[in-house]
Amino acid sequence: MTTAPAQFSGPILELADRRGDLGEILRERLMATVETMERELASASAPMRELVRHVERYRGKMLRPTLVHLAGMAAGGLGPEHDKAAAVVETIHLATLVHDDVLDDAEIRRRGQTINALRGNEAAVILGDYLIASAFHLCSSIGDQGVALRVGEITKTLCEGELLQLHHRDDFELREDEYFRIIERKTASLIELASGLGARLAGADEGVCAALAGFGRWLGIAFQVRDDLLDLVGEQPVVGKDLGKDLGKGKVTLPVIHHLGHVGADERARTLTMLDDLAHGRTHDRAPMQAVLRASGSIEAAHEAARGCLDKARACLLTLPETPARGLLEAMAEEALRRDR
Amino acid sequence: MTTAPAQFSGPILELADRRGDLGEILRERLMATVETMERELASASAPMRELVRHVERYRGKMLRPTLVHLAGMAAGGLGPEHDKAAAVVETIHLATLVHDDVLDDAEIRRRGQTINALRGNEAAVILGDYLIASAFHLCSSIGDQGVALRVGEITKTLCEGELLQLHHRDDFELREDEYFRIIERKTASLIELASGLGARLAGADEGVCAALAGFGRWLGIAFQVRDDLLDLVGEQPVVGKDLGKDLGKGKVTLPVIHHLGHVGADERARTLTMLDDLAHGRTHDRAPMQAVLRASGSIEAAHEAARGCLDKARACLLTLPETPARGLLEAMAEEALRRDR
Repeated sequence: MTTAPAQFSGPILELADRRGDLGEILRERLMATVETMERELASASAPMRELVRHVERYRGKMLRPTLVHLAGMAAGGLGPEHDKAAAVVETIHLATLVHDDVLDDAEIRRRGQTINALRGNEAAVILGDYLIASAFHLCSSIGDQGVALRVGEITKTLCEGELLQLHHRDDFELREDEYFRIIERKTASLIELASGLGARLAGADEGVCAALAGFGRWLGIAFQVRDDLLDLVGEQPVVGKDLGKDLGKGKVTLPVIHHLGHVGADERARTLTMLDDLAHGRTHDRAPMQAVLRASGSIEAAHEAARGCLDKARACLLTLPETPARGLLEAMAEEALRRDR
Repeated sequence: MTTAPAQFSGPILELADRRGDLGEILRERLMATVETMERELASASAPMRELVRHVERYRGKMLRPTLVHLAGMAAGGLGPEHDKAAAVVETIHLATLVHDDVLDDAEIRRRGQTINALRGNEAAVILGDYLIASAFHLCSSIGDQGVALRVGEITKTLCEGELLQLHHRDDFELREDEYFRIIERKTASLIELASGLGARLAGADEGVCAALAGFGRWLGIAFQVRDDLLDLVGEQPVVGKDLGKDLGKGKVTLPVIHHLGHVGADERARTLTMLDDLAHGRTHDRAPMQAVLRASGSIEAAHEAARGCLDKARACLLTLPETPARGLLEAMAEEALRRDR
């Protein structure tokens, strides 16, 4: 991991820069978060140091640490433990990314892969475990039993969500409520934890903690719905990562569920054939699937669902005092809405 | 997991039965440990419950929980948190077994495996993560920050040991000190944690805690040396698990290191060819390797090393009061010595 300040940019910080010195403060806190992570992940063992260096490539928008800090500010102010809490949540997030890659590689291997990737997978299992252990070790250093219990509980919930998703792979009968149950557990739970911990460590009362946790929860659901949408209909050069992976893995997401529930029997049968072909690698062309999902209004319906979640997220903030940090949280949800259209 | 008391048997309990009511007490505590684990691992999610049921097959001798309880008794008596600590250590141990199997399965897959095993692997990664998260959640419920920090630290050490082992796969130049560094981290660290936590939670002073931690550490090293020996020269029907896996994986253990360091250049070259053939599946016959290891005295040298560690383990106990629990710990090391010959 590098600590170059230039690393920290992106839409949230751009929004923050328009709000007094909030951008400056956030950059400092994100820097401190990364330093805390680096200290925790430092290892006396050379192969582990080597592996930890690879984690850098997973570092993205730092959404979760940003939420810890913003929620802390919105709830009364940052305390000495916010950097640690932010590092804990981000480290757990990194662990899920590293272990997700193991799962995804396994999928790639279904279509034939080399031994090299295999040895990489073995190291990835160990690295993910090291990240989880580091997160809990750091979390214990906060010295707040309630925080530690909550982090443990949410990490269990996250695993349940991942397993539920695996369980429903190739399940084209997946219901909408089951889809939401999966993304609430595997994605929204950790984002809810981030904003909730930020509030708790600011010494806020239960109402404020619940409001900010609720904000994180709805924001997390909206983000996952949108991520799933991007995987279906996004443009690779814009999004900057492999797309169409969900279809290739037989992972059913909201637009597909909406479509299958709203078309006639003949079209349903045709769509199921397309899904099956995509899931089993008989085709990699997403265009025909995108066309039928647009025609049935299913893409727009999923956008609408994400917008509804973002509205709920913003509504959670209404009881909080009007601070610049609360303003930025609202702007984050609005910005997500804008990008959504 | 079943809670049938009949599950608890084996050499340690047989030894305990000869020491007053110690066998009875240990069985009760192991039962409570399993119940604590079951409560912690219980999930509202059906696929997770299904997966957790498979963990039962990993439950073996309960060595680590036994050590938590015996160390607690030897250090002054069991407190209300020993069951939790025992469950924490055993749950981390189970997580390493589950994730080791992912690694091992990957190896089998090098020689061609089905897609079914692959989906099993994905679930195994998630299950292992769930076990680690559960262990930390349960650990946090003890409410002793020092215990939580220690458990986090040792879990990190364990990962470093696993990675070091992976790093040295197919490394026939592995030195003896590196071999011991690996097994200290990947095996002895958790056994040391078990006896150390048992002492700490009994409220013992630092000297007693260090003595019992040291006992666990040397016992753990001896057990791993012996496990590695069994994999090389054990008889499958006696040991009850697949043997020769280390040679097949290019995993170099103590007898091989001793042998390569003590024979002439010609024999060394012949042995290296045999090792390479075994590691790459060109042969599965361990007999010629066993013969050369015996001829060079390398099998006996490894037995001798294990005996030395067990002597050191027993020496750690000398400063403790002579209680039935201390007697049983000594007997455990003696019993291991006996089986060793």
